[in-house]
Amino acid sequence: MTDRTFSCSIDSTLTVIGDRWTLLILRDLFRGVRRFEQLRRDLGIAKNILSDRLQKLNDSEIILQRPYQTNPIRHEYHLSEKGIDLSPSLIALMHWGDRWYADGQPPIILTHATCDTPLTQSTHCISCNTDVKPTDISSRPGSDIVQFETIRAQ
Amino acid sequence: MTDRTFSCSIDSTLTVIGDRWTLLILRDLFRGVRRFEQLRRDLGIAKNILSDRLQKLNDSEIILQRPYQTNPIRHEYHLSEKGIDLSPSLIALMHWGDRWYADGQPPIILTHATCDTPLTQSTHCISCNTDVKPTDISSRPGSDIVQFETIRAQ
Repeated sequence: MTDRTFSCSIDSTLTVIGDRWTLLILRDLFRGVRRFEQLRRDLGIAKNILSDRLQKLNDSEIILQRPYQTNPIRHEYHLSEKGIDLSPSLIALMHWGDRWYADGQPPIILTHATCDTPLTQSTHCISCNTDVKPTDISSRPGSDIVQFETIRAQ
Repeated sequence: MTDRTFSCSIDSTLTVIGDRWTLLILRDLFRGVRRFEQLRRDLGIAKNILSDRLQKLNDSEIILQRPYQTNPIRHEYHLSEKGIDLSPSLIALMHWGDRWYADGQPPIILTHATCDTPLTQSTHCISCNTDVKPTDISSRPGSDIVQFETIRAQ
């Protein structure tokens, strides 16, 4: 990653979810913790902060509210498709913590549901059919691709 | 990801880097922005906040200071092995932003340095030799593995 002339989508992502509480709420939603009181207890988070973060996640269409009780009305919070798509980010953050802070004993292992094998995550080049190390990554402005496709279409 | 009885390494990770400025500083370091003034200008970040975040990253051994000038002394900030290992997390966050906030035109494309092919990132099961979707992920306490290995060793 050598280019620094252009902005990148990490900005966009962090504007929406770049807050520790938000990421911890998302982690809990992935684990199936869906109700306000469960989230509040599990995270030890103040009610007003939890309300604020859930509202922002809802406004960003990362979570969906679904009523589970009508009198009084109570909602569960579910991940939308956009929210579920954050799975690779949370897995990457978790694996890093496993490698650097767990003394070789990760507290939670993520596994393939059908066979219980621990999951791996990799960055891949489909042309070379190889996993790519961080030191072998470069970057270029995305507009290059648009320009290239435009030229080919002419 | 269904288990919620145990803590997980996302906590550990976010305690260290779960802050928007910290993640943006790391992004810039991956791009080769290494000097205090460059970082300050590129990020539009207040000096005291930048100093604080760099100090914390240094204390966590995610970055290393290397002098590039002696009179007065000035340092560049480089990613350590632990810092470079955050690459998959930043790639995942960036790809999510690309998918949901870039209208099909990612501002930056990460590529394989040797062939310029855009990179993909996947979660994989080595037993089934298949990519695993978020909905096919389960979890279990890591201590199970320790127990299992202990039983087998008896």
